Amino acid sequence: MTDSPQPVAVVIGAGLIGASIGCALVEAGYAVHLRDAKLSHARVAAGLGAGTIEPAVSAHVGIVVVAVPPAAIAEVVVHSLQTYPYATVTDVGSVKAEVLDALWRREVDLARYVGSHPMAGSQHSGPLTARKDLFSDRTWVITPHRRSADASIEAVQAVVRAARAREVLMDVDEHDAAVARVSHLPHLMSVLMAAHLNSVPSEELLLAGQGLRDVTRIAGSDPSLWQQILGANAGAVLRELKGVQEQLAALISAVEAGPADLRDQLELGIAGTRRIPGKHGTPQVAYRQIVVAIPDAPGALARLFADVDEAGVNVEDISIEHDPVREIGYLELSVAPTQADALAQTMVERGWSVS
Amino acid sequence: MTDSPQPVAVVIGAGLIGASIGCALVEAGYAVHLRDAKLSHARVAAGLGAGTIEPAVSAHVGIVVVAVPPAAIAEVVVHSLQTYPYATVTDVGSVKAEVLDALWRREVDLARYVGSHPMAGSQHSGPLTARKDLFSDRTWVITPHRRSADASIEAVQAVVRAARAREVLMDVDEHDAAVARVSHLPHLMSVLMAAHLNSVPSEELLLAGQGLRDVTRIAGSDPSLWQQILGANAGAVLRELKGVQEQLAALISAVEAGPADLRDQLELGIAGTRRIPGKHGTPQVAYRQIVVAIPDAPGALARLFADVDEAGVNVEDISIEHDPVREIGYLELSVAPTQADALAQTMVERGWSVS
Repeated sequence: MTDSPQPVAVVIGAGLIGASIGCALVEAGYAVHLRDAKLSHARVAAGLGAGTIEPAVSAHVGIVVVAVPPAAIAEVVVHSLQTYPYATVTDVGSVKAEVLDALWRREVDLARYVGSHPMAGSQHSGPLTARKDLFSDRTWVITPHRRSADASIEAVQAVVRAARAREVLMDVDEHDAAVARVSHLPHLMSVLMAAHLNSVPSEELLLAGQGLRDVTRIAGSDPSLWQQILGANAGAVLRELKGVQEQLAALISAVEAGPADLRDQLELGIAGTRRIPGKHGTPQVAYRQIVVAIPDAPGALARLFADVDEAGVNVEDISIEHDPVREIGYLELSVAPTQADALAQTMVERGWSVS
Repeated sequence: MTDSPQPVAVVIGAGLIGASIGCALVEAGYAVHLRDAKLSHARVAAGLGAGTIEPAVSAHVGIVVVAVPPAAIAEVVVHSLQTYPYATVTDVGSVKAEVLDALWRREVDLARYVGSHPMAGSQHSGPLTARKDLFSDRTWVITPHRRSADASIEAVQAVVRAARAREVLMDVDEHDAAVARVSHLPHLMSVLMAAHLNSVPSEELLLAGQGLRDVTRIAGSDPSLWQQILGANAGAVLRELKGVQEQLAALISAVEAGPADLRDQLELGIAGTRRIPGKHGTPQVAYRQIVVAIPDAPGALARLFADVDEAGVNVEDISIEHDPVREIGYLELSVAPTQADALAQTMVERGWSVS
């Protein structure tokens, strides 16, 4: 593949994603060559440590990462397969089937193409906000097709490892159905809510709180990018939207029917939020509870919290448990199982009543 | 009203909202008496500086703040009007018409009741997360009715000022229609999206990103509380849900029709997000742009950013402007108008090309 002992990568498209991949690959020891239709973007990315803007020697390039806007991906992948004869080419677009379909129609060496999709980003765009740990602990889907060479899959896996991401292998169509559900549908629900605000009088918008801001945040994202993403996955997106249409009708019936039916709908929502994996894809840790009687004297509670702080234990949650018969209360401190005994001992030593 | 020169308040319900109001009132010089059905909650709130659990002398109380769950509000307001004969009574519930309707049916001195609604909260509940600045710069709606005495409205205004919130006066029905649009509908859209996740296979949820988490965050809130809130405002909520039903049908047609129609829907979403006032209800500040040529030499960009940092100016945004003819780029630094000249001068002095 390459004469150089150092792996050589070309990253095409120096936006947030491309520049961040460049930074991660440089950190992992790759020689990275950056290209962008706008030279100034490539230059800024290079200035931030994502690689060099010097052109690569074609025959030395082992991996090409195509990080251009969705509508341009297929053309740039074709061109890359032709320009770099020994390189594996991957793209990082959000929709995989349309690109693969386009490539099948072209005269290219498909064995060297393996699509992928890092599940990271931000509302920012452009290389200025790039960072080498953007993908750290995030899922990065790899979508091989039936002609992908094993060596090419391994080359993409090496990029994913270099970015410290968590690799998930998926079929192309399975991937597109999944992102329709967990990414494209939430985007359109956010758009739907935001569009509804156009009919709300300005003075009423003074009552907007954090909830509205959270729900509508992604509706403010780049419409050109999302037009391309949603357009490329229209079939899968339509199936999800029609599912929501039925659920909305059920929700309206529930609000009309009364509190018990409404409660069922709210519980379905709670169950849904609990299915989303923790921030880093890890299951929730089970905590242990240390229970301390709530002190009666004024000022004692502040001293109790100060003692907890000084114990140097990371308290994950605090709640109040009330005994309605004895009319007294307890503070329940949730901590990692490994720290529970130490905290209990410290609190007892400092004179608190631990049960 | 009261013989004491110090204003005396009773706060009933020592959850997050009640305890935070207690803290703000204590800070503003009120004598605050806390009550809660669970004594341990009142005791914790008192321990955190929200007041005392000693009972108040009824005749001294000037203001009662009712911060109990929605379903209990009307009963507690009635009882408070009877227990504290000289006090103004306000509640802080999220829906105003149902409580007022219930009070009209009772034999109470309605002149001393004025509803209100602070637009603040958090996904946390209970007094442990209370803080005196919870309402700082937030909207607090006051909803007088046609029998409210001027002195009572003023007593509630004094509480709003003490909490450093921004006062908005609204009619009861107007308030309920507004919160249906900017709070209750977003909640149900979040629930709808979260409920949809129950049919998504676990492995696909590994692809969940920040967008899905933001859209579904509020769906995880306390279902008992939301069942009461939405139940009390069912009529207004239904009108909004039926409006969304029409918009969803239009969105589905747009996805079916193709990219141009889809783009129109995305632009409606962008327009909607722009209507939400800034974090503190203030209009967006217009920034001035300082334009610096992007340096060509390796490492120079890092020095440029270091010089911007040392200028001690708060840069609100940075973007790259590309000149496609001359193939060069510029960094556009957005700063407050009052700081623009100083930044430009500093950058010129340090040898950068500022245009």
